[in-house]
Amino acid sequence: MTGKLFIVGTGPGNPAQMTPEAEDAIAVATEFFGYGPYLDRLHLRADQRRIASDNREELDRAHAALARAAAGADVCVVSGGDPGIFAMAAAVCEAIDKGPQEWREVDLTITPGVTAMLAVAARIGAPLGHDFCAMSLSDNLKPWDVITRRLRLAAEAGLVIALYNPISKARPWQLGEAFEVLRQVLPAQVPVIFGRAAGRPDERIAVMPLGEADAGRADMATCVIIGSPETRIIAREGKHDLVYTPRSFTGESH
Amino acid sequence: MTGKLFIVGTGPGNPAQMTPEAEDAIAVATEFFGYGPYLDRLHLRADQRRIASDNREELDRAHAALARAAAGADVCVVSGGDPGIFAMAAAVCEAIDKGPQEWREVDLTITPGVTAMLAVAARIGAPLGHDFCAMSLSDNLKPWDVITRRLRLAAEAGLVIALYNPISKARPWQLGEAFEVLRQVLPAQVPVIFGRAAGRPDERIAVMPLGEADAGRADMATCVIIGSPETRIIAREGKHDLVYTPRSFTGESH
Repeated sequence: MTGKLFIVGTGPGNPAQMTPEAEDAIAVATEFFGYGPYLDRLHLRADQRRIASDNREELDRAHAALARAAAGADVCVVSGGDPGIFAMAAAVCEAIDKGPQEWREVDLTITPGVTAMLAVAARIGAPLGHDFCAMSLSDNLKPWDVITRRLRLAAEAGLVIALYNPISKARPWQLGEAFEVLRQVLPAQVPVIFGRAAGRPDERIAVMPLGEADAGRADMATCVIIGSPETRIIAREGKHDLVYTPRSFTGESH
Repeated sequence: MTGKLFIVGTGPGNPAQMTPEAEDAIAVATEFFGYGPYLDRLHLRADQRRIASDNREELDRAHAALARAAAGADVCVVSGGDPGIFAMAAAVCEAIDKGPQEWREVDLTITPGVTAMLAVAARIGAPLGHDFCAMSLSDNLKPWDVITRRLRLAAEAGLVIALYNPISKARPWQLGEAFEVLRQVLPAQVPVIFGRAAGRPDERIAVMPLGEADAGRADMATCVIIGSPETRIIAREGKHDLVYTPRSFTGESH
């Protein structure tokens, strides 16, 4: 008899942004697999076991969790944000796809969560208020020329672009080059939002025009949102600017 | 002295998928503006006033809410899903942008939520597991040729495509034509997910290949997700298929 496998999203890191559904799944499971800092967000009981791994070991973690669930344990795989957005749900599906038959029999439940770009957008206005895309800038799992082609087409399509995994110690130059690619397509005034740790005590949100966007402003915990030519800035006295993309398309650049 | 203006996302409609942060905002406000069915999700106290309006009256609703907040009331604008994704946050920002100076002084807080595509994705696997875009198919606020151009570029870019507002009584043919446009770019086997009311008692999720995708399967409460050539289906005995988009790009179509 197989156990249950939950894949939960803990949201952006602010406990008030985690859903009750995720909390309920966490209460049921007894073994927790995840990247250490995400597991640190949980308040586990003495009978709940924690198996932390590095954030680049997603597929190994998925294998380990599936093996335990197939053996009858009630297992929880813990993601930050939403588990379906550049996170563990795809890794677990991939493991099931390529793994033994018994992994397909595991009772799988995925609970959605607030993904980083939504939390960043909420703090600054509504930059994702119209058509947009979300892309991972990591070239660990896809060739860099696929990434630059996608960036160019997305910008030509007039989509706002949310970038996940914009930069890391092992990938220091990619975000700067992405800005270069986008400057060839988009006006220099298009707003770029650097949204770090939205909703957490160490939150830091900055907005600057694409023409001056500095990749050094981003780190691993940053979601970068690049506006479209339609995206607008509202100045407010004594309050931070609001950035939003109107619901209607006028064809005007600002 | 101005009041507070909260814009909250109630999530896809399952109360367990609404964040505590949204609940807290709802507890503070005394006047609630929103589309009737979204307001119906709240359990308001006797001292909390409900001002329902039609779902096409977003800008009027934003004006009314801002006017009340500027007059000192604690106001809550209620969205389904996430307020920043094809919902009220952009309408309120637009109203502030074009409205009187005093609206800029309103104390504005936006709480993010689980948007429909995340809830649908979680129920079926991880179709949004890699680069994707979200587009509104409504041609009320942008020209249809802008929409078809965006669809074509997004498909050429290899992005999974989540469609909001796919169909309505006033817009009966657009989704069928969108499928036609996408069939010119994408392989016929690409999976299309019709995700209706994910997480609610009347949930209905169907998957079919793009070549056979029937727009009649969608209604106003449906989020349609069109896979990329990389998106895969996992058959499971006695369980629904899983649909996922791998984290890595191989360049293979299936």
